[in-house]
Amino acid sequence: MSYPDDGLALHTDKYQINMAHVYWKDNMHKRKAVFEVYFRKIPFQNGYAVFAGLERVVRYLSDFRFTDNDLAYLREEGYSEDYLAYLAELTFTGTVRSMKEGELVFANEPILRIEAPLAEAQLIETALLNIVNFQTLIATKASRIKQLIGNEVSMEFGTRRAQEMDAAIWGTRAAYLAGFDATSNVRAGKLFGIPTAGTHAHAMVQAYRDEYTAFSKYAETHRNCVFLVDTYDTLKSGVPTAIRVAKEFGDRINFLGIRLDSGDLAYLSKEARKMLDEAGFTEAKIYASNDLDELTIMNLKAQGARIDVWGIGTKLITAYDQPALGAVYKLIAIEDEHGQMTDTIKISSNPEKITTPGRKKVFRIINKGSGKSEGDYIVLEHENPAQEERIKMFHPVHTHIAKFVTNFEARELHHLIFRDGELVYELPTLREIREFHADNLNVLWEEYKRLLNPAEYPVDLSQACWDNKMRLIEEIRQKVNERIES
Amino acid sequence: MSYPDDGLALHTDKYQINMAHVYWKDNMHKRKAVFEVYFRKIPFQNGYAVFAGLERVVRYLSDFRFTDNDLAYLREEGYSEDYLAYLAELTFTGTVRSMKEGELVFANEPILRIEAPLAEAQLIETALLNIVNFQTLIATKASRIKQLIGNEVSMEFGTRRAQEMDAAIWGTRAAYLAGFDATSNVRAGKLFGIPTAGTHAHAMVQAYRDEYTAFSKYAETHRNCVFLVDTYDTLKSGVPTAIRVAKEFGDRINFLGIRLDSGDLAYLSKEARKMLDEAGFTEAKIYASNDLDELTIMNLKAQGARIDVWGIGTKLITAYDQPALGAVYKLIAIEDEHGQMTDTIKISSNPEKITTPGRKKVFRIINKGSGKSEGDYIVLEHENPAQEERIKMFHPVHTHIAKFVTNFEARELHHLIFRDGELVYELPTLREIREFHADNLNVLWEEYKRLLNPAEYPVDLSQACWDNKMRLIEEIRQKVNERIES
Repeated sequence: MSYPDDGLALHTDKYQINMAHVYWKDNMHKRKAVFEVYFRKIPFQNGYAVFAGLERVVRYLSDFRFTDNDLAYLREEGYSEDYLAYLAELTFTGTVRSMKEGELVFANEPILRIEAPLAEAQLIETALLNIVNFQTLIATKASRIKQLIGNEVSMEFGTRRAQEMDAAIWGTRAAYLAGFDATSNVRAGKLFGIPTAGTHAHAMVQAYRDEYTAFSKYAETHRNCVFLVDTYDTLKSGVPTAIRVAKEFGDRINFLGIRLDSGDLAYLSKEARKMLDEAGFTEAKIYASNDLDELTIMNLKAQGARIDVWGIGTKLITAYDQPALGAVYKLIAIEDEHGQMTDTIKISSNPEKITTPGRKKVFRIINKGSGKSEGDYIVLEHENPAQEERIKMFHPVHTHIAKFVTNFEARELHHLIFRDGELVYELPTLREIREFHADNLNVLWEEYKRLLNPAEYPVDLSQACWDNKMRLIEEIRQKVNERIES
Repeated sequence: MSYPDDGLALHTDKYQINMAHVYWKDNMHKRKAVFEVYFRKIPFQNGYAVFAGLERVVRYLSDFRFTDNDLAYLREEGYSEDYLAYLAELTFTGTVRSMKEGELVFANEPILRIEAPLAEAQLIETALLNIVNFQTLIATKASRIKQLIGNEVSMEFGTRRAQEMDAAIWGTRAAYLAGFDATSNVRAGKLFGIPTAGTHAHAMVQAYRDEYTAFSKYAETHRNCVFLVDTYDTLKSGVPTAIRVAKEFGDRINFLGIRLDSGDLAYLSKEARKMLDEAGFTEAKIYASNDLDELTIMNLKAQGARIDVWGIGTKLITAYDQPALGAVYKLIAIEDEHGQMTDTIKISSNPEKITTPGRKKVFRIINKGSGKSEGDYIVLEHENPAQEERIKMFHPVHTHIAKFVTNFEARELHHLIFRDGELVYELPTLREIREFHADNLNVLWEEYKRLLNPAEYPVDLSQACWDNKMRLIEEIRQKVNERIES
């Protein structure tokens, strides 16, 4: 290693450093710029996503500064002393609005809004996306799995297959806030207060060479016992031995149940259930794990598997069927040379990649009669739907799809996190976030929550927001045409 | 946060802590145990995998200790004071043999072999797998992509889509050692000395509102220029503007080329090439990015795309098409109550999950005539094929597939890393690892390196190793049957 790993300011793409250099040299670096973070598509074809990552973002922005080693490295890379002197003084001085962690979030709505001096706003982009993309992805996957298993117990067991260490701990935190009950990762327990779970591995049975000795030794040390029964032969050896040890130890242990980690989980769980019941252990639970995800769980349920506790690893912690979320960070307004804020847009030949210009707020429009959401409503900064009696919600592409909504509560989804670099938001506890997420799900109709082919939740622009976008598209088109003709 | 994040000893599954507890209480914790790390299937249906992760493993094991905060947390979780007192004194005292980073590795061969007191060996399992699984996965993906693009320049651009921060930096290190040329992640440049690359984003064009101003400002600050040309209209606006600025600045800049980040890369690159050539910039390169992987690159090449530099992000850094490697950590021998080492085995109803017992070494059998490898040869500790004139290599499942090999060099793949807890291995530089990997590939016939349907590289057990396995399977079967009958 050339330098010690003593800060995260360089956890960014080189082009951010180079762009900030241009802005600083051109004296553009202090112009106020507004960026929004959003994604274009909900992952896993789910009906909603779950925002996570704010706590890590807050820490990152609070600690943002270039260390002496960072500067020494950049010096070696050829950056000029006066630019380095500017970077040496830099802290994050911007204003951040964000959704709360655990909030339900949909495609094309701003999750975070950063207003900061242009260079600062640019330098933080990469880390923000790195954090938000992964944590939101895993929270969404976990919430999706949780929709299927309801109140059955679910545990996150994926550390060994996670994409390096940060993914293991922040991923299991995301899973917990979205409804998982426990983690196997002890460090995550220490850092975040997540309940931890785990008993023993096949290696312990191998070390003692037989299951009877292994289970007995475990029971002598630990009151709460779940025995892993598939080291040699689940039904012929593992389950009978677990029952034998549970009987022998009686009240001296709390026999929670058995764990299956391989083989035909549907068949084995049904047979094991019978054996446990016949032995009088009707309260003992059957834990199962082995590459589970919502698809295999749904199939196991369809086959009548008698599984009480789900241990979910690889498929959750890596979001195996879609291991990346594509949230982007787009400039939507910038201060011009006269100190006026001007909205900006990015055009693309892919229509879904055109940005929506201007500073925006997001409201969840909740019908006071049903208590359910009518959809999300994106407005320009100056608008306030909470003060309106009736709003028109129309599809931002197929504009003929429209409805008028009355008797609603408009809940604003953005909260002020940093004001001019000062943290003004009190981070909720992880348990509060978890409850907030669970409560949130209640405002969604079931149609948006089903696993397969969920209905499309409306995310609509206000008329003013839509008009502003159309105006800028037209302006840019004219400018480009003028340039091409000239 | 309940506790500060001041150590990695708790970056483990809870069951490891619980098993170590059992061993300690039963005075089994100091019995010498031997575990091996290996995977059962090469990812991406590739013909080989590339081992990475040793440097991080070495750091982890060197620093292994429970901090006061770790112990305070475990105390809160109910572990007994005397067990905590034992943990407080623990450091890693084992012996580790490992393949070198950059080594080609195949299914079912031990990558690392850990011989340590049972409790220690168990406690480190989770972190080792977490590290080795991810880094090996990404190195393999990168090497696979590199097979396709040959000497064309490749850059790792995926930080914003990586699975949290560790994945971004260790992933890009893995990509570099497997042949990638540069990274966008500046922190990875600082930590590992990887060359960094990057110019500017769409946001810079938006900030200056037109491409001409943006490119010119960039050229005033940076000598090396690659202009991003797809903010408004690639062929009508972006490329002509890049050419105009390159002409205006002339020798004052080093016009490296243009970057395409959206649209039809095949068509756009061919048209852009013509425009650059016609303007006299025949040396200017075309950089391309946008969800590239080996499949899209192969297609682009088939279409005659004129791309010189490949920027590869999401699909590489998350190993998108297979985001987890399933390396396992299996007990293969343990000291018995008389101080004798006994081989152990785990039986499974899935035949591929049966372990191969005993302490083993791995040799690459290189034909002295061709300089190419005949396959890998796994032997028991006491065997040394380097001293034999002729060896019989036979398929470990289909044993009739066999060949005799003479005139070979037997290169041992394991190196001693820790001896009784002391680091005795000098970590090579990242550049040395990269060269080692490139040299390694030369000993493989092309048939094992092609992207689609590669030939199966032989990984064979020596007769003694195979016999030992069969003997243990039989022993266990008898024991299980006796237990069932009793």
